[in-house]
Amino acid sequence: MTSLHDSLTVIDGLVISKWSRAVFADMREGGLTTANCTCSIWEGFVDTMRNIAQWKRWFAANADLITPVRSAADIRRAKAEGKTRIILGFQNTSALEDQTGYISLFKELGVGIMQITYNTQNLAGAGCYEPHDAGLSIFGREVVAEMNRVGVLCDLSHVGAVTSRDVILTSNRPVAYTHILPAALKTHPRNKSDEEIRFIADHDGVCRGDDVSALPCERKRGNG
Amino acid sequence: MTSLHDSLTVIDGLVISKWSRAVFADMREGGLTTANCTCSIWEGFVDTMRNIAQWKRWFAANADLITPVRSAADIRRAKAEGKTRIILGFQNTSALEDQTGYISLFKELGVGIMQITYNTQNLAGAGCYEPHDAGLSIFGREVVAEMNRVGVLCDLSHVGAVTSRDVILTSNRPVAYTHILPAALKTHPRNKSDEEIRFIADHDGVCRGDDVSALPCERKRGNG
Repeated sequence: MTSLHDSLTVIDGLVISKWSRAVFADMREGGLTTANCTCSIWEGFVDTMRNIAQWKRWFAANADLITPVRSAADIRRAKAEGKTRIILGFQNTSALEDQTGYISLFKELGVGIMQITYNTQNLAGAGCYEPHDAGLSIFGREVVAEMNRVGVLCDLSHVGAVTSRDVILTSNRPVAYTHILPAALKTHPRNKSDEEIRFIADHDGVCRGDDVSALPCERKRGNG
Repeated sequence: MTSLHDSLTVIDGLVISKWSRAVFADMREGGLTTANCTCSIWEGFVDTMRNIAQWKRWFAANADLITPVRSAADIRRAKAEGKTRIILGFQNTSALEDQTGYISLFKELGVGIMQITYNTQNLAGAGCYEPHDAGLSIFGREVVAEMNRVGVLCDLSHVGAVTSRDVILTSNRPVAYTHILPAALKTHPRNKSDEEIRFIADHDGVCRGDDVSALPCERKRGNG
């Protein structure tokens, strides 16, 4: 089992943590090739930039354990390096405020994944707890187009059903549910129906399971 | 003369302009290999980031004329490409606000030069128009150390005499006057004495002349 795990490229779809060297050592010990590590949930532009500045300090201080991902080739290289490659990720687009121009700046700083909404409504669309979901807004469509252009993955995990469908149909690159469970196993606003999972897969997207009960943010803000 | 110019690596120490494709075409036409182009003078963090986002749009829309500099090797490559390589530069450290952690973010986004102060006092030190110059502040010393660490050039053109001397003595990398004239040719608060020019040269720094009367910012804010 160890040797199988050692030979696999293991990508954790989402890690959120009280980050420390001990956590980075555990990720390494656990054989993670790559992880999507959250650096923005509710933060605006400036606070997110400060979080990224802190990540730069962690990268410098823990260079033996972790290193950033810039491209798919970096993930393939990660196995050989004996380090965990970190994709910085957003669980919201609040950090963009109302500026699509910020997307290319974040991408250049190592942010490779942005979830369109986090549970509730934002400028781009609706979250999965909203009773009404009108789909992608005009700004949301501009956000998806710019994410496509610069190469940031659209994450739909906490995103409302109509907004998710809009993103899947609008995006000209594959999109992903990085951390959900099938609603067929557990009824929960965060989980996705078989139809939704089939729909993203049929449109070249990726779906990856997670135990939603283990998500601390869920308990903090979720109302389901 | 044309052939001599063609064979030279020509680095313009400072260009500030109402940027447009016509300006980029003129830079190319004039045979500039590389230029330090101002993207922040009095702006704080957010407005500077918006300026840089605008530069990303200019790079995308004028990719046949200009392209960013990331390293010294990029400058050497510039001659072969037939494009002008742009070093984004600050004429102030106001964009850092009180966060040295922002320096590595700006560096990653293509900012290669930061002038420590612009004419007046800021958190780091004094400008060349201040009647009293106490030298580098505690924060200013942290700024220079971080600029050294990540590889951003300290520009001292509009910087006060004592602060300049502190930076020259503190920096563990060469620093520069990118756009000044000798005070021996014209007495002006922005110009440098023979002793100052000799001092920076004796400490491995670089001094490059400019016609201060042609600088629009000078007239806007200068009091000398």
